[in-house]
Amino acid sequence: MSHTIFLSPKHITSVIREVGSNTLIDELIEQLTHAFAEYDAQLMQIPIRAGFKYDQPRTGLLEWMPILNSGSQMLMKIVGYHPKNPELNEIPTILSNFSLYDATTGQLLAILDGTLLTALRTGAASAVASRVLASPDSSEVGIVGCGAQSITQLHALSRVFDIRTVRYFDPDESAIHSFRKRCWFLENVDFIASEVGEVVSNSDVLCVATSIDVGMGPVFKDVSTKPRLHINAVGSDFPGKTELPLSLVERAYVSPDCLEQAIKEGECQQIPANSIGKSLAELLRLSVDTKLQNSTTIFDSTGWALEDFVVTQIFLRHAKRLGIGDELQSLPMVQDPKNPYEDLMPLNTNQSNRSELIN
Amino acid sequence: MSHTIFLSPKHITSVIREVGSNTLIDELIEQLTHAFAEYDAQLMQIPIRAGFKYDQPRTGLLEWMPILNSGSQMLMKIVGYHPKNPELNEIPTILSNFSLYDATTGQLLAILDGTLLTALRTGAASAVASRVLASPDSSEVGIVGCGAQSITQLHALSRVFDIRTVRYFDPDESAIHSFRKRCWFLENVDFIASEVGEVVSNSDVLCVATSIDVGMGPVFKDVSTKPRLHINAVGSDFPGKTELPLSLVERAYVSPDCLEQAIKEGECQQIPANSIGKSLAELLRLSVDTKLQNSTTIFDSTGWALEDFVVTQIFLRHAKRLGIGDELQSLPMVQDPKNPYEDLMPLNTNQSNRSELIN
Repeated sequence: MSHTIFLSPKHITSVIREVGSNTLIDELIEQLTHAFAEYDAQLMQIPIRAGFKYDQPRTGLLEWMPILNSGSQMLMKIVGYHPKNPELNEIPTILSNFSLYDATTGQLLAILDGTLLTALRTGAASAVASRVLASPDSSEVGIVGCGAQSITQLHALSRVFDIRTVRYFDPDESAIHSFRKRCWFLENVDFIASEVGEVVSNSDVLCVATSIDVGMGPVFKDVSTKPRLHINAVGSDFPGKTELPLSLVERAYVSPDCLEQAIKEGECQQIPANSIGKSLAELLRLSVDTKLQNSTTIFDSTGWALEDFVVTQIFLRHAKRLGIGDELQSLPMVQDPKNPYEDLMPLNTNQSNRSELIN
Repeated sequence: MSHTIFLSPKHITSVIREVGSNTLIDELIEQLTHAFAEYDAQLMQIPIRAGFKYDQPRTGLLEWMPILNSGSQMLMKIVGYHPKNPELNEIPTILSNFSLYDATTGQLLAILDGTLLTALRTGAASAVASRVLASPDSSEVGIVGCGAQSITQLHALSRVFDIRTVRYFDPDESAIHSFRKRCWFLENVDFIASEVGEVVSNSDVLCVATSIDVGMGPVFKDVSTKPRLHINAVGSDFPGKTELPLSLVERAYVSPDCLEQAIKEGECQQIPANSIGKSLAELLRLSVDTKLQNSTTIFDSTGWALEDFVVTQIFLRHAKRLGIGDELQSLPMVQDPKNPYEDLMPLNTNQSNRSELIN
């Protein structure tokens, strides 16, 4: 009753290994689809995220993303974005920590390393959106930005499309070099390192996730694209940071994960609010407009706390079933909750009768 | 480099026991005094806290209180306020969890149980304020609300005043009964359980910390008070929740811990902004106005993230020196930070030469 489950990066990996990475991401895609479709703002309270952005000693961002499942649990995600991490510290750009609270008592129920969870849920969200918006026979996938996020994007997409070709681009040669190896889970797929224009123009589904600085986008020039290109715009997640050329965003149907957040932080920053399409949650609830079936479409994925909540529930359930994780003692173990110094009491005081002390 | 320090409630208690509870709270009072006096909004970014408030299944509040020490660290405090906890679950009303991040990389540096830390820093802040605002020869202390917070209030006050009498009141008989025993650290002090009016009218320094519901204050009627009464108003910390009678707040000099927050959540809600006094930080920087020396004064203590930052630094420093705490593995231990699935790679893939795979 009084323990907190701790899932370290190793525990998270163990869960995936035990469950199977394909089974797990399939489950995540299905659960996310349900969560988006059934999203109820009364039941799931998701304030727009806030954070600290700084340039000293180097560019970085630490954000908090709370979500309340009313009457049940609160999840707090802290996510750091520090694009110099891989180069300077050999650690991921995006690090994250999740903590889960009982929303009837305030008890800390669980702490999870959120780094891989964030990459997984972001990939799975793109698969959910692509299943709604992209052509079902999409087989050519483009990757612009070959960092950690691209791997889970591709993995999740591979579960909902029969991918035959992956074209990929990154300004960093070493990321291009290692990309095929990092996609070890894909077989019978042609991997073609390409110029960025080639990647874009040949894609049925394109995933963009770069560390471009605020104000420095777009990350590629508009080119002639396939008539039914679908883009998962993943990297635009901060005021001023956008990745896509304006003309492309303007001619596309843009569906945000969270409208309020996308207007502030996503590709939606580039266009008037009245030209933004329905959110993914709305699209999943409605029969999809057939007009979309010949359109260029964009999923404006800024990253939504609902996704974090879903991935947390899945991992905690599997971890419990599999006996994976550590138990932390996190609740004050006192007999009298109004006695914060109970454990510090001298033994004779602690054991003696109250009336003796008063008299 | 890649570990996170975890300080459980037991570790926190061990630190206090090793350092000595008096030595530790003295250090906290001194460090808080410095931190308030030297507070620089450029260096310490403290957004106003936000949270979820709910009434179902029972009244509660979960808040987040971030603070950035620019260029160095971010602390995130999650604090729960669930006044039915002691009665229904035998756990404290206020539970809290602190997590500390490196603000150059996003790494999780430490997790601390924040329950006792919150009580300690709130007590110490009242001592800091009382040293500025109360008469130096204050000897009669009043306690309205004998919950967990009252214990650290009294402990901290006892370090800066020569307390001879403590009068105390609580609507809960059992809290009154156990109060003397819970104040085991005080010797040669008269403890007098009293009617609330008696408590108020006889106090040199009064601490008020109750679980009164929103809109249900004040917790006592205004009475004739000593000319130089100082009040630490601790319990008013949410929109609509106030504890003090309006006439008392109106005739007092009110110093908030954080003006912006006190206007929203503190006793300052009751009065016009232009009648609020200087903040504690301002008072500590200035030579104190001699007019205050014959006034009724109120420290409007809503609870400020700066206090959490200070208490965290003190406990982490002692814990490190004393070898107290657990180490959690919290950083993905991967060779390639751009390879989130590195630990999942089949051995032959992992070990094989990249060029073999590509060809």
